[in-house]
Amino acid sequence: MTAGSLAHTSAPTGDAPRPFSDRHIGPRAGQVGQMLQTLGFDSLEALSTAAVPENIQQAAPLRMAPAMTESEVLAKLREIAGRNVVRTQMIGQGYSDTITPPVIRRNVVENPAWYTAYTPYQPEISQGRLEALLNFQNVVQDLTGLPVANASLLDEATAVAEAVLLMRRATKKGSVVVLDSELHPQVIAVVRSRAIAMDFRVQIADLSQGLVGEDVFGIVCAQPGTSGAVRSFTDAVAGAKERGALVTFAADLLALTFLQTPGAQGADIAVGSAQRFGVPLFFGGPHAGFMAVNDKLRRQMPGRLVGVSKDVDGKPAYRLALQTREQHIRREKATSNICTAQALLAVVASMYAVYHGPVGLTRIASRIHRLAVSFAEAVRASGVAAVTTEHFFDTVTLEIPGEGAAAAAVAAAEAAGINIRLFDATHVSVSFGEPHTVADVNTLLGALGIDARVDVEAFGAAGHGTFGAAHIAAPQLPEALLRTSEFLTHPVFNTHGSETMMMRYLRTLSDRDLALDRTMIPLGSCTMKLNAVAEMEAITWPEFASIHPFAPESQTAGWRELTADLENMLVEVTGYDRVSLQPNAGSQGELAGLLAIRQYHLANGDADRTVVLIPQSAHGTNAASAVLAGLDVVVVGTASDGSIDLEDLDAKIEKHKDRLAGIMITYPSTHGVYEEAVSDVCARIHDAGGQVYVDGANLNALVGLAQPGKFGGDVSHLNLHKTFCIPHGGGGPGVGPVAVREHLAPFLPGDPRDAELVNGEGTALPVSGSLLGSAGVLPISWAYLKLMGGEGVTEATRSALLGANYIAASLREDFPVLYTGDSGLVAHECILDLRELTARTGVTAEDVTKRLIDYGFHAPTLAFPVAGTLMVEPTESEDKGELDRFITAMKHIRAEIDAVGTDYPYEESPLHHAPHTATSVMDDWDKPYSRKTAVFPVHGLELTKYFPPVRRIDGAFGDRNFACSCPPPEAFASAFGEDA
Amino acid sequence: MTAGSLAHTSAPTGDAPRPFSDRHIGPRAGQVGQMLQTLGFDSLEALSTAAVPENIQQAAPLRMAPAMTESEVLAKLREIAGRNVVRTQMIGQGYSDTITPPVIRRNVVENPAWYTAYTPYQPEISQGRLEALLNFQNVVQDLTGLPVANASLLDEATAVAEAVLLMRRATKKGSVVVLDSELHPQVIAVVRSRAIAMDFRVQIADLSQGLVGEDVFGIVCAQPGTSGAVRSFTDAVAGAKERGALVTFAADLLALTFLQTPGAQGADIAVGSAQRFGVPLFFGGPHAGFMAVNDKLRRQMPGRLVGVSKDVDGKPAYRLALQTREQHIRREKATSNICTAQALLAVVASMYAVYHGPVGLTRIASRIHRLAVSFAEAVRASGVAAVTTEHFFDTVTLEIPGEGAAAAAVAAAEAAGINIRLFDATHVSVSFGEPHTVADVNTLLGALGIDARVDVEAFGAAGHGTFGAAHIAAPQLPEALLRTSEFLTHPVFNTHGSETMMMRYLRTLSDRDLALDRTMIPLGSCTMKLNAVAEMEAITWPEFASIHPFAPESQTAGWRELTADLENMLVEVTGYDRVSLQPNAGSQGELAGLLAIRQYHLANGDADRTVVLIPQSAHGTNAASAVLAGLDVVVVGTASDGSIDLEDLDAKIEKHKDRLAGIMITYPSTHGVYEEAVSDVCARIHDAGGQVYVDGANLNALVGLAQPGKFGGDVSHLNLHKTFCIPHGGGGPGVGPVAVREHLAPFLPGDPRDAELVNGEGTALPVSGSLLGSAGVLPISWAYLKLMGGEGVTEATRSALLGANYIAASLREDFPVLYTGDSGLVAHECILDLRELTARTGVTAEDVTKRLIDYGFHAPTLAFPVAGTLMVEPTESEDKGELDRFITAMKHIRAEIDAVGTDYPYEESPLHHAPHTATSVMDDWDKPYSRKTAVFPVHGLELTKYFPPVRRIDGAFGDRNFACSCPPPEAFASAFGEDA
Repeated sequence: MTAGSLAHTSAPTGDAPRPFSDRHIGPRAGQVGQMLQTLGFDSLEALSTAAVPENIQQAAPLRMAPAMTESEVLAKLREIAGRNVVRTQMIGQGYSDTITPPVIRRNVVENPAWYTAYTPYQPEISQGRLEALLNFQNVVQDLTGLPVANASLLDEATAVAEAVLLMRRATKKGSVVVLDSELHPQVIAVVRSRAIAMDFRVQIADLSQGLVGEDVFGIVCAQPGTSGAVRSFTDAVAGAKERGALVTFAADLLALTFLQTPGAQGADIAVGSAQRFGVPLFFGGPHAGFMAVNDKLRRQMPGRLVGVSKDVDGKPAYRLALQTREQHIRREKATSNICTAQALLAVVASMYAVYHGPVGLTRIASRIHRLAVSFAEAVRASGVAAVTTEHFFDTVTLEIPGEGAAAAAVAAAEAAGINIRLFDATHVSVSFGEPHTVADVNTLLGALGIDARVDVEAFGAAGHGTFGAAHIAAPQLPEALLRTSEFLTHPVFNTHGSETMMMRYLRTLSDRDLALDRTMIPLGSCTMKLNAVAEMEAITWPEFASIHPFAPESQTAGWRELTADLENMLVEVTGYDRVSLQPNAGSQGELAGLLAIRQYHLANGDADRTVVLIPQSAHGTNAASAVLAGLDVVVVGTASDGSIDLEDLDAKIEKHKDRLAGIMITYPSTHGVYEEAVSDVCARIHDAGGQVYVDGANLNALVGLAQPGKFGGDVSHLNLHKTFCIPHGGGGPGVGPVAVREHLAPFLPGDPRDAELVNGEGTALPVSGSLLGSAGVLPISWAYLKLMGGEGVTEATRSALLGANYIAASLREDFPVLYTGDSGLVAHECILDLRELTARTGVTAEDVTKRLIDYGFHAPTLAFPVAGTLMVEPTESEDKGELDRFITAMKHIRAEIDAVGTDYPYEESPLHHAPHTATSVMDDWDKPYSRKTAVFPVHGLELTKYFPPVRRIDGAFGDRNFACSCPPPEAFASAFGEDA
Repeated sequence: MTAGSLAHTSAPTGDAPRPFSDRHIGPRAGQVGQMLQTLGFDSLEALSTAAVPENIQQAAPLRMAPAMTESEVLAKLREIAGRNVVRTQMIGQGYSDTITPPVIRRNVVENPAWYTAYTPYQPEISQGRLEALLNFQNVVQDLTGLPVANASLLDEATAVAEAVLLMRRATKKGSVVVLDSELHPQVIAVVRSRAIAMDFRVQIADLSQGLVGEDVFGIVCAQPGTSGAVRSFTDAVAGAKERGALVTFAADLLALTFLQTPGAQGADIAVGSAQRFGVPLFFGGPHAGFMAVNDKLRRQMPGRLVGVSKDVDGKPAYRLALQTREQHIRREKATSNICTAQALLAVVASMYAVYHGPVGLTRIASRIHRLAVSFAEAVRASGVAAVTTEHFFDTVTLEIPGEGAAAAAVAAAEAAGINIRLFDATHVSVSFGEPHTVADVNTLLGALGIDARVDVEAFGAAGHGTFGAAHIAAPQLPEALLRTSEFLTHPVFNTHGSETMMMRYLRTLSDRDLALDRTMIPLGSCTMKLNAVAEMEAITWPEFASIHPFAPESQTAGWRELTADLENMLVEVTGYDRVSLQPNAGSQGELAGLLAIRQYHLANGDADRTVVLIPQSAHGTNAASAVLAGLDVVVVGTASDGSIDLEDLDAKIEKHKDRLAGIMITYPSTHGVYEEAVSDVCARIHDAGGQVYVDGANLNALVGLAQPGKFGGDVSHLNLHKTFCIPHGGGGPGVGPVAVREHLAPFLPGDPRDAELVNGEGTALPVSGSLLGSAGVLPISWAYLKLMGGEGVTEATRSALLGANYIAASLREDFPVLYTGDSGLVAHECILDLRELTARTGVTAEDVTKRLIDYGFHAPTLAFPVAGTLMVEPTESEDKGELDRFITAMKHIRAEIDAVGTDYPYEESPLHHAPHTATSVMDDWDKPYSRKTAVFPVHGLELTKYFPPVRRIDGAFGDRNFACSCPPPEAFASAFGEDA
């Protein structure tokens, strides 16, 4: 067969010309043979059979429908989409209809340069998306009037929950949080879940009436409220301060263009969702949540925080700041488990603000407000219903008394093509958004039996000249709450208003970054595989993107069909019995799974079972999630071969046997090894009455070969954004479904709108504000599984093993491979040990990650799970050509390391000075190696060279001189200008 | 107002929050004031009133519907799209259903880095798309077995017409071309149009029966034929050779994976359409036509030809080869008027071959063939109809005798969701393509009343292992015509088979180029304005993209609504009475317009009126089109101020008064000036009985201000890919509608399928193979006009004047502006005169174009319309920031020019050595200026630097050492490796 020959899978089904798996899987048929030969195997099956312990190997192939072609999948998706009904969405309740500017849709959401990027842990190759996220922070800071915002959180409900936890730990006293009764129901339900786990009390009160009660550590005010009401919280805020409690505002960013900032209203914390800044409704998510805090709270704030620092040349440079706060560092001392957030959506929201600017945003807000006012005035004048929201921004609540009259109004609106909210038995709410028009208002008035109509020309005319950048006509807002401060005055929000400039800004930023569209990203534990276009295309179709999460079921048949089918496929892949798609990040999946274990023990009367065993090598988030689930973490040691220390395990089981909740293991282990003893470990835990949590982070090494639900797991979370092809988006969207065996099914997350959960009852604790979490991106994983079929995903797993073992075998002589299984094989990733080289030459693993940038590669995972090492995971999507280029680069780097002490001292080595920018190899060159060695160290880079925009970044400097808003343009001008 | 303030148009209509014109037009409101101040005007209206001669100024504003928002336009497009019906397309007749690989759709057709690029006249910043087009040529060469292919032509019909003209001029004898009766009817109609104009004779014959008759200069064989028949042309080819005539094959590229190449069958020329290589049906276009020729004909071949040359460092580099052949150089000696072709579609076709490779293409072809065979066998066995195509590839023709029986069969198929072709009263044809399935075959069999069904499993099984790279099962093809030669053996076609590799290849290529997504492209006469996403999005929707041009009218209501509406809007803009959208390039619009003039005179009995006057400054294509329309070109001189020399005009009118067909002028002139005398010129021509052709190339300086149909024009062509926002796509898609006053309406291009035209009768001479030419991209211009409205497009024109005059005023001291109108103003572009500087320093205008690359800019137009000058057209879409960056760069370059002779000799200047690659500023630097001066000459480039992949290219070397296929990888390895 030639290099281009097809069909390394078995025959395609039916009459399909070519299986999609041949597109997803990198190595061509001929290359597979060569790679296998290197490893001494004669088939992929032989390799995987040797690698996976026999006692866990899956007996039967996956039972899934035959693989479909891309055309078939897209046709099927169109059919499913056709069963959703797009209506004018005026339900509100935390999800506002919005317009994604087409230039942002195409150039961000539909552009692999943005959506295939990884979390910006390597800041030198992430300056573009770091700037985008810094812009996001700046938007949140300006609009909330608080100095430090993060980028970003998962949704409004979890953001409020995080704020409550932050208030609790910052005050270190009190056991009660008072939630405003005007918070959205789903927000209250999620906070109640956390309260149950973390043992604090929730009180619900109308905080506009002041604060009563004691033992309060914090309050959360809703501005505006779920009914739309805009109220003053002066008394409650004063009451909180008197008690030494903290104040959180759950706020609407667009309303804040009109309203006094939460900071000015006395808030210590502001949270909410940035969805309405151009992020589609997506049937509930993914959307970026936000949090801003006052300066005192910044080191305790959860989530990622972009800060400004400088590179070794003194030029301004962005990177993630204050990382020591983060869960993966703090482990069982963590205070939040947020890692993957909804970064890509934060980028969209940020760019929405960049594109519209302060004047445009104000104009959008003004128009929305005037639509709501026009509607309310017509209703009031009609006498048909009473408007119960005295002051409001975009949402009007009407009282429609009489048995069933409110429900009838909702039905009448629906019949007219408009979804409004049934607020309660006698009220409806109508919430306006950017796409809505005077015609929509008039349609709704007609549907509600109101004769009056708004005149479109008069409405349009009244909108002109009624405001400048900071002056708005806000007839239905209290004068005292009107904003007077400026916002978004930074040039970035006042420069890119034409589509041409916006397009170029987006291109400029993405050009500064390395994403999958330019290089493999061999990040161990992160699984940067292909995000195929056929998988991605459907998510921006209006029939998926424009559905409100609380739309009537009659409008969401397509969504429900797709998600039910996806759940079934995930059940088959994992061997569990039930799956919930609600968790909108892996960390939330962990939390949901651990909450299920905790709830299970409680239901069995085992309230004392709170100890969870976690191996030393576990990802830090495991411990963080356990803490948030109210569990006590006990660490189990690692044996010298990297596996779980079984003696220590027995000792810990014995010690905690009466309090044992369970164990949390990752399989294959975070060392990238299939441990033989896994079944044995599971049995020992079960024998002691514990539950087994198998972290699904490495599920991509199991799919089709072994099922955690069969070999001993009781519960797992999956990372759809790893194994199932949802792109990383620079740090989200995340989707972390939780899969359980039947006995845990009653404890899967429920619908956070259920009255029982809102009232703090029930066992199905929700972890996100909507039933299906990041629903909007689920078509991606659905499509992947349909395109691959059971054989395809199994072959993908085997190919991932092939790639990892090929790299391990090829690099072993240059960099020792730290751990292997009994077979001598690694699983889907391998750890390259640099510690001996570091000791000998001073060259660190970090130096190697930076030097790889000069070779055009994104680095492997650094210092996890073992300090001083690099963990390499090539995934199945990389062909032999790309793997060989990486191997060549690493061997070349090894030679450079060997030259330390002979050709140059460490401090003058290309490793120490890496990465090299284009400006750094200009005229004043004083290095002992050549410019060419610096930036063109191997052949093949001449026509594909990526120059990082900055040199190595001084993170500590940034933390010492903390700055988290956009630096003034002069900072760049002077940095580049001084030596001009 | 702040920099971000809105609304430089008047108030938006109704309740729209912000007019789209504010996104399309670059300068922000505050910037407009600053720019006007520079020019001494206080409003845009005052500027345009001063610039445009009073006697042609439009009295009333354009009557168009109010501007719509992006959301409204997209909703309206969805509504219109919903009126088209997507069916399984088995009509064939030159348009085969195909699958655009999603990775190519997203990363080429939907990616501005590809679609906003200009024609690669500046090869140093076009290496990516030049490689893509070179791949296209390689595909055509390999599959046709002829050594030189171009990239590309407009469609199959015009490609055949071009081949006929090529045969005629290459043989220089004979007056008859014999067309195979199996050519598609629309192809015959287009060739007949050319024959009428160019005075040669067309005979139709069944060339599989040999060749009879004399005085033949060429024959055109259809392989396969329109019925699907694959026949041998041995005798006809021999007959042609005996007569000294040339042989053209109209061939199907996919069939050629099976069939002996046209070259091997004796063809001198092969032509056809590359549509089925992944280019959507698009209701008829745009698709890339192709032509390959033997070595003797290469200098006479029309169209663009990519060749391999080297840069000044000796590295392989691509550029357009043999440019002296081209129409814009040869003017009235031109033999073809092809300029804009369908480059973006050629890129798609090329990438389809890169992605599938030879094995994949063969597999697709094999499967299509087997579908056709299965169908034919079932029909034969049924006895319901006779299969009249003995040998076939993908198309089967059935005889269905009986009054109306064939039509009934077509109707029955349509009712079952499948479009087939009514071949004639008693025959139907069924043509298979890549998306079709066994299920489709069975549906069709059922619809035709045939009981037999194809077994899908058996079909699938039979497809495996029946072929290798060069061996296929072809049961219905004659053994003697089976291909035995290999094809696409170059690595580029055998490396990018995974989606990951394909995505990266596309990114790598586009990164080598400069397109609008990174920089302004200030090309005079080319109008590189914004191609907005909201305009672009609809073209890839299946309801537009998947409609066959010959689908029944009941399925195309949406298309017809949209195109009729577009015609009406263009009538309003131009002031003419009727518009035809058929011409699929500006050059074809010219041809159609001139043919209309010629036909008009003929209809009036004025057969002698064949002289067309063309000013000296006209674009070369004008003259070329006139030649192709059978007209005699007489050049009119230019006065010293650049305007038409009225004395010479009078003299020429007098001299040719009895033979005067008309005049062809460009307005504003190609000098970028509104000539006062235009009305006078038109009147003089009309008085002499001539017609006035106003070239619409510069219509963007007239829209809303003056209407050529009112100030004296009888006919114009428009360039939708300039004025109306269709992107340039690296050299197409083109759309060149022709607009006429009522008296010329009968002579607008007709439907090439009309029997009258196929038979060589009628006056409505077609210029393209389908009624609506490049229909597929018409939603772009439709959306632009809807988004802007009459006020918006008028303001765009005024803003284009503002930008051009701002640049002229800002650069005048450094580079003299060659021509201005009586007002002292330029129109929408300005000519910077470098001749004095060149004489003084040796620095040429070309040096400046190359040096601008180092500053990150695409060059202005070089040496047109005046040698030694640069013509700058900023368009309305560039904001003041980008204009100022350009002005700064040009002033800096002026200072560099002034330093010649003092700081460095010309030969050692950065101008002479520009552009500078990254590799060229590495270690062995011997220039008198610094590395930093070379590549970072001004501030602001540090974070946006574009490095060209090659240095200045030696075009002449490439022409002397002609090569037009992909160079072997070793060529690059050695070029970059030798000095490693």
